[in-house]
Amino acid sequence: MARPLVRFNHYRIARPSSPHRLKNWRRRSSMRSSDNALPGAIATPVAVILAAGEGRRLRSGRSSLPKPLVRLRGLSIAERSVAQLLAAGVERFAVVLGCDATLVQHEFERVARRRRCHISFVEAANWRKGNGCSALAAAPLVGNSAFLLTMVDHLLTPEMIRKVLADPPAQDEVALAVDHDTENVFDFPDLTKVEVTEGRIAAIGKELTTWNAGDTGLFYCSTLLFDGLAKAHTHGKFSLTDGIKECAAQGGVRAIDVTGEAWLDVDTPEAFREGIRRIDAAMAKGGEDGFVSQYLNRPLSRRLSMALSRTRLTPNHITLLSFFMGLLGAVGLATTEPWSWIVGGIVIQIASIVDGCDGEIARIKLLQSPQGAWLDTVLDRYSDVTIGLAVTFAASQLHDAVWVWPAGFAATVSFLMASYVTKEFQIRFHRPYPNNLINKLKRRDLRIFVIAVGAVMGQPLVALLVIGSLTHLAVFQILVSGRHCTVVPSQVNRPRCTGPPIL
Amino acid sequence: MARPLVRFNHYRIARPSSPHRLKNWRRRSSMRSSDNALPGAIATPVAVILAAGEGRRLRSGRSSLPKPLVRLRGLSIAERSVAQLLAAGVERFAVVLGCDATLVQHEFERVARRRRCHISFVEAANWRKGNGCSALAAAPLVGNSAFLLTMVDHLLTPEMIRKVLADPPAQDEVALAVDHDTENVFDFPDLTKVEVTEGRIAAIGKELTTWNAGDTGLFYCSTLLFDGLAKAHTHGKFSLTDGIKECAAQGGVRAIDVTGEAWLDVDTPEAFREGIRRIDAAMAKGGEDGFVSQYLNRPLSRRLSMALSRTRLTPNHITLLSFFMGLLGAVGLATTEPWSWIVGGIVIQIASIVDGCDGEIARIKLLQSPQGAWLDTVLDRYSDVTIGLAVTFAASQLHDAVWVWPAGFAATVSFLMASYVTKEFQIRFHRPYPNNLINKLKRRDLRIFVIAVGAVMGQPLVALLVIGSLTHLAVFQILVSGRHCTVVPSQVNRPRCTGPPIL
Repeated sequence: MARPLVRFNHYRIARPSSPHRLKNWRRRSSMRSSDNALPGAIATPVAVILAAGEGRRLRSGRSSLPKPLVRLRGLSIAERSVAQLLAAGVERFAVVLGCDATLVQHEFERVARRRRCHISFVEAANWRKGNGCSALAAAPLVGNSAFLLTMVDHLLTPEMIRKVLADPPAQDEVALAVDHDTENVFDFPDLTKVEVTEGRIAAIGKELTTWNAGDTGLFYCSTLLFDGLAKAHTHGKFSLTDGIKECAAQGGVRAIDVTGEAWLDVDTPEAFREGIRRIDAAMAKGGEDGFVSQYLNRPLSRRLSMALSRTRLTPNHITLLSFFMGLLGAVGLATTEPWSWIVGGIVIQIASIVDGCDGEIARIKLLQSPQGAWLDTVLDRYSDVTIGLAVTFAASQLHDAVWVWPAGFAATVSFLMASYVTKEFQIRFHRPYPNNLINKLKRRDLRIFVIAVGAVMGQPLVALLVIGSLTHLAVFQILVSGRHCTVVPSQVNRPRCTGPPIL
Repeated sequence: MARPLVRFNHYRIARPSSPHRLKNWRRRSSMRSSDNALPGAIATPVAVILAAGEGRRLRSGRSSLPKPLVRLRGLSIAERSVAQLLAAGVERFAVVLGCDATLVQHEFERVARRRRCHISFVEAANWRKGNGCSALAAAPLVGNSAFLLTMVDHLLTPEMIRKVLADPPAQDEVALAVDHDTENVFDFPDLTKVEVTEGRIAAIGKELTTWNAGDTGLFYCSTLLFDGLAKAHTHGKFSLTDGIKECAAQGGVRAIDVTGEAWLDVDTPEAFREGIRRIDAAMAKGGEDGFVSQYLNRPLSRRLSMALSRTRLTPNHITLLSFFMGLLGAVGLATTEPWSWIVGGIVIQIASIVDGCDGEIARIKLLQSPQGAWLDTVLDRYSDVTIGLAVTFAASQLHDAVWVWPAGFAATVSFLMASYVTKEFQIRFHRPYPNNLINKLKRRDLRIFVIAVGAVMGQPLVALLVIGSLTHLAVFQILVSGRHCTVVPSQVNRPRCTGPPIL
């Protein structure tokens, strides 16, 4: 049988003509790292994304949009498929088009611009016959190199992708990520079952009666796959599973165990809702929270993040929004009018809630970056200082006492010391300071809340001094705790001679 | 030939009856880690230290003290031999006594108390015959376990000891650390030469005419050594080298290459002076310094450290001394008297110089610890804040302007932000912020110097505001630099399939 006709659409992002400074804050880095790569050096394989299918089952239930364009919490399914691979270190992509090729390609081109990555396109002429035809269409794009193969509508965790990347296939081998915990697979009836024997795939298919794992739809392939697909074609079988069966018949398919990693085939309206549920659950997995954050800020910020995820706001926009709200609140606190304190107190508490959204949006939209976390934490320190300064300034205008400024000054300094000591602790002792009671007492959520409540009650300076004293005590306790801390010693090889321990 | 008579003196440190809080700050940790060790677990081998010799050549030149009691920059040679092994992770020691056994044992017992480690003793009856007899005397103490063997008068780097520990001997093997760079060995005429062939010792002795390495005097031995020594004894040869020759004749001695590591046999008055020179050179290898530190503080603090090393002051004593001097200087700056500012300015600059001594003393006396560095850096922050507060307070008493407090407050905050951002940078981007011009402008040495000079010239507030503004600019520059920073991606295995890079 002849190979399917392919049409090439090579697409490479151009440098932006005008600088989008804020937008680029997070993305510049990934661009740079690929720019600096040695010519010809392959750090990670290309990922082939199959996006040719019709997605009939989801389409009937949701809308008439092609599946890759459907949005899951603000990101199209196409963007999620690319972003999750980018997060795992993949840098180059080849997308196989079929149904609604123009629309889908346009969406992926948008993704390539936003995420600053390289995407090549190929159109599978006979994608209707089966996804094996779509996979075969990618052959000219991958050459002799090993490549990842995944479906556009599969939600995967970066950890799962990294596990697969860490275990590349041999010269004539296909590796398939399998999940042994089939009982907990979503939409079990639709699962492609797999029989794994001694680490290799003995049988695969939805119709298997004995199996011990499920096919996750993530492959790490050598070009053996194309031979298998071509052979299946000659037998009139056109699905990817048919090609894998041919490879497995030669003993050429290895299993990579990814049991325990969350993955989801977003195929039906039910799976779509499950996908949103999982994205929301992942959003909640932030850093460790303090008391106020846990019971007040997070429940509100999560709802806000879900709403904000529909907008074009990036996490850095939200970081800056929260920062300027904090400054605005500080202006309110710096006056001598009690009604202005009430407004200022409410504004800084809202800013503290919004401050949780940047990380949440980043997790929802797969935009986490050290640059974003860096901006967030440093601006929080400036915000803290400004609020302390404002409260002290207002009090100094009302009272003539000589102690007001030194006391407010000392209280505000405790906020910076609190952040400083935990960073210093982490660097000195090679582990984060535990999120114990002391740590929770000195966290930002509590200090902003106490000052906000104090301001609303007409006593911002008292609140500042109370939380400042508490924070100083916590810092002192952390300082003293350092004398009991040890650095885990580096492992030293044990002597090969054996004998009873002496001394 | 009969084995030499041995006398056991098992010595184990007791818990101190009264708490020596400050002294224990650094040492508590090592005590804890050994207390928590599983019973019977051997993390590192016991180190046998030969301290039986007469040390005639050094003694004639220096004093009548036994060699292990001679002090090198404040630490006895005995304490250095134990401390350098402790720094490499060795926890248990066996010392072979001979000449002046009572005095030497007393010194090692003092070391065991100070350094909180376990030392066993054995007296070699016939140590005068040769150091082979001394080594043989250790046999009952090490049982069947592999052990390190070293001479009390050898200065070794912890890195060199770690290299040897990482390469334990096989069941019937002796490993000898060798230095291939024999041209740069101190006191070359006295060097025991070694011929290494394919990683094994083919010949050893001072009389060799062809050689390619030198014997460093650091061994990692199985009990094969005792067989070799006993065999040499039967031939009437009593040196350690004779025993090694016997082992090498069976092909049982492996070479561990430690070329490039500094080691020194402190055998003669010349070597003694060389040892002091090397300790002083190691003292200088601290963190990266700023301008004032490099050209003013360090040259003075090094001389001071050499003088202080003769006293019983620990690095933590000096940290606290510098901290309280800083507070004292701040009291001087907090008054409204210009003469008091001059005194305060001079005192804070001296405190800044003394602040360099804690790390230097720690390196001289092999007392470095993360706990000590932790105390030092956190107290420095409190000192900075107190000085800024004092200067602002004094100015607020003299001027009635409303801007004095906010300006002094903002300037002081920059000092904390400067320390905070570099720690945060290190945590976010997994590397220290480079010691570039920006970093040097925001370092503590410069800010204290500027305030001290300003105070002496009668303008402490101006100096505070100038250095505060400069520091804020540096912090802002560091904040902005974060957007260009990337985290080095974790290594991903390359695919085993080969082919031309695509895309």
